[in-house]
Amino acid sequence: MINFSGSNILSVTQFQKKDIDHILSVADDMLPYASGQETTKVLDGAVLANLFFEPSTRTRISFNTAFLRLGGKVTETVGVSNSSLTKGESISDTAKVISSYVDAIAIRHAQKGIVPEFAAASLVPVINGGDGADEHPTQALLDLYTLKRELGTFDHITIAMVGDLKYGRTVHSLAKLLAEYNQNITFQFVAPPELQMPQDIQNYILAKNKQHSIQTTSDLITGINQAAVIYSTRVQEERFSSPKSYEQFRGKYRLNKNIIETHSPKALILHPLPRDSREGSQELNIDLDHLPNLAIFRQAYNGLPLRMALFALVLGVEEKIKNTAKKSNWYINKNF
Amino acid sequence: MINFSGSNILSVTQFQKKDIDHILSVADDMLPYASGQETTKVLDGAVLANLFFEPSTRTRISFNTAFLRLGGKVTETVGVSNSSLTKGESISDTAKVISSYVDAIAIRHAQKGIVPEFAAASLVPVINGGDGADEHPTQALLDLYTLKRELGTFDHITIAMVGDLKYGRTVHSLAKLLAEYNQNITFQFVAPPELQMPQDIQNYILAKNKQHSIQTTSDLITGINQAAVIYSTRVQEERFSSPKSYEQFRGKYRLNKNIIETHSPKALILHPLPRDSREGSQELNIDLDHLPNLAIFRQAYNGLPLRMALFALVLGVEEKIKNTAKKSNWYINKNF
Amino acid sequence: MINFSGSNILSVTQFQKKDIDHILSVADDMLPYASGQETTKVLDGAVLANLFFEPSTRTRISFNTAFLRLGGKVTETVGVSNSSLTKGESISDTAKVISSYVDAIAIRHAQKGIVPEFAAASLVPVINGGDGADEHPTQALLDLYTLKRELGTFDHITIAMVGDLKYGRTVHSLAKLLAEYNQNITFQFVAPPELQMPQDIQNYILAKNKQHSIQTTSDLITGINQAAVIYSTRVQEERFSSPKSYEQFRGKYRLNKNIIETHSPKALILHPLPRDSREGSQELNIDLDHLPNLAIFRQAYNGLPLRMALFALVLGVEEKIKNTAKKSNWYINKNF
Repeated sequence: MINFSGSNILSVTQFQKKDIDHILSVADDMLPYASGQETTKVLDGAVLANLFFEPSTRTRISFNTAFLRLGGKVTETVGVSNSSLTKGESISDTAKVISSYVDAIAIRHAQKGIVPEFAAASLVPVINGGDGADEHPTQALLDLYTLKRELGTFDHITIAMVGDLKYGRTVHSLAKLLAEYNQNITFQFVAPPELQMPQDIQNYILAKNKQHSIQTTSDLITGINQAAVIYSTRVQEERFSSPKSYEQFRGKYRLNKNIIETHSPKALILHPLPRDSREGSQELNIDLDHLPNLAIFRQAYNGLPLRMALFALVLGVEEKIKNTAKKSNWYINKNF
Repeated sequence: MINFSGSNILSVTQFQKKDIDHILSVADDMLPYASGQETTKVLDGAVLANLFFEPSTRTRISFNTAFLRLGGKVTETVGVSNSSLTKGESISDTAKVISSYVDAIAIRHAQKGIVPEFAAASLVPVINGGDGADEHPTQALLDLYTLKRELGTFDHITIAMVGDLKYGRTVHSLAKLLAEYNQNITFQFVAPPELQMPQDIQNYILAKNKQHSIQTTSDLITGINQAAVIYSTRVQEERFSSPKSYEQFRGKYRLNKNIIETHSPKALILHPLPRDSREGSQELNIDLDHLPNLAIFRQAYNGLPLRMALFALVLGVEEKIKNTAKKSNWYINKNF
Repeated sequence: MINFSGSNILSVTQFQKKDIDHILSVADDMLPYASGQETTKVLDGAVLANLFFEPSTRTRISFNTAFLRLGGKVTETVGVSNSSLTKGESISDTAKVISSYVDAIAIRHAQKGIVPEFAAASLVPVINGGDGADEHPTQALLDLYTLKRELGTFDHITIAMVGDLKYGRTVHSLAKLLAEYNQNITFQFVAPPELQMPQDIQNYILAKNKQHSIQTTSDLITGINQAAVIYSTRVQEERFSSPKSYEQFRGKYRLNKNIIETHSPKALILHPLPRDSREGSQELNIDLDHLPNLAIFRQAYNGLPLRMALFALVLGVEEKIKNTAKKSNWYINKNF
């Protein structure tokens, strides 16, 4: 197993199966602190720089609160307009200066390649919060962690991935992780032909394990049949080659209560969020909201213990969390 | 009395008199901690999401520091441009996700109705920090708390409300609160005819208690006569039907030292702030700044203990504040 | 020596030599806490308002983390677009309200004169984080602190100041500080004639001590000869009277490894940052980055202990830091 202490978290490809298992196990240890039922001061005095050069409210707040719930403090920046980067400062200079002030860094940037360049110059551990179209390792890990919490195991499962599989960063990462770390997965890729899962990722999956199987379809009902998990993603008009091409598939990948109850009543439904609730979008209809199958809010919440685990690991405190544990003394009654 | 623990604070109309009295009494308990003379750790480990989708520096900082002075930590968002709301996410989805990360939420939004919708989906207590033209309950409560601290009682008082009484959210709320909770108030509404207090609010006041009395006038001197309290508000040109109509009243509701000393020397002067100090505005002249009557900065400060009280109440810790109290060990010498 | 407790830090000119010496000595005491090796809770419960009305990511994060590393908490505002200042509120009103909520304030504003006006109305100590073209005392102090840490002494040194010496706020302040507090400094001012050090500052230096000496030149090689310290600054095209005038000096003040090794191999190289790494700029070539002479990142880091020292002094806790000191229990391995 790798030595996490002092390391960066830049890509899921840096880990072996036992590393991933360890991360998910430490995430389990975080659950009482993530919910606020208990508090810990293990990072009392530590400071995180939470650098969201590309804004993303949900992910930013998740990283921020993960560090706070370990007892640390956070300094933040949002957007690039005010940063020295706009005055011609190199990424490396920015990294050297900011990392000299803090103990850990979470960073998101719209441009591919910036995050690893930043990490290379940083004096402290860096966690990638999204690297353009490239990597978003904490999303992939929280998706995997959700499968573990919801299903217990993820060997031998059938997973349907639905929507924009060509540009969807999250489905690429999750497919690769499942292929590498688990046995005999059946992947059902459901997308319009021009937005299907890229061939190199399909090849990657089969190269990892010949026991995996892949089916592709553009028909939703065929694709979700027998699936233990349906991972839905947004289908955006601007991804299509022409408006006509989009019209042909508009609304064809919307899940609703009737479809689920008729065709896949036991399937767990995931989505990386945000889901678009505007007319004409609605990849997940709100009539799904009261089905226990809909795990999207539990999934989003799992980002918190997962990111807490990563901070604890890279700062080498995962064994010390309990030393300062205390029951919290305020009102708590979170019903998911 | 309502059970505050776990509840939302959305509107002053949700309270009865004994609830309000309790809030103001808990606010008094907060004074040593609000001033920084003493510290408490009662919310050590708790996290507030301070969501100012409509920016407002003063109110945001007041909510933020209220939570910090109770020993908690804060994660913040300012403006809507970076939020998932702009990607079509529903208010309900945003509320479910963010509330799963934190222990309490303060929220301000420019659009009427958003705050209650958010609160309905939240897993944790929500405090309304301003809901478009609709509700701003913490402002109304801090105004009332200021009257209590400054006058001891607010039964039987004469209060002059001056300026834009048609669109002024704060004067509407304060008038309703006083009408409901106190005895024999004399309201003197001083405004240009087209910006007078709406008839439905005047009716509300008299319906609550026939002992209340109401006088309306467009003349400042007549209106502030005998008043124990003058509540001044901004008169903005864009609220008038025509520039000519504005010209007729420009500067007619400005208070200055000479007017106060001549016509109402003992009146307490309040204002929701900010006051406009630019030429042509100046509803409160700066020559009032050295009169002890001018309570506007004490009023703004009262927002801090008042908001601390609300956080303590909705998180059910109001009885535990003193358990971790300590004298602070840094320089303190705030002279109001 | 002045009594720092409760005072504002607005300008380096407010101090005498013994005050400066004391600040730098307290900054030394901060080093174990600045690096994160140890933690202190001396400001546990205290709240800083970090008001960057003019954005500056590096300086803002430096003030923020300085307060956090003393055990305090921070509330922040960035930019003026959302502030009450845009609604016509006076600086004095803003200062009175915000200072009533917090225990200390750091403030930066693009407009000269705003910071002292704010400080005059504040109820709590104010530290100037940059006051338009006027004052930036913490930068000047951290530059001086860097000379002390790097050279041990700064008496009798030869310092070359290079680049835009006419508009460069940092070189003005550092030159004045050195002139006032130290002996027999040789100043070598290296700049295009139209951007040379203003005559009034040259006069100020010699008026302070006739033992100081000044040489001016537009030639880089001549100017850095024999220098113990080279303080480089940006030369921006828009500062020149004409594009033609700029073309004449474009790139003439760029330092690189070859120049340093040939002409001034022992010189310490400083820069206020950010340095512009874009083609056509590059006042400090990146081939300097591996020379131990290049002190720019140690210099930027020194802003942290220096600002911690100022907060400790104005809040009167500089003697109490050690009372709550503890070794930190997370990974630390910052190699500058």
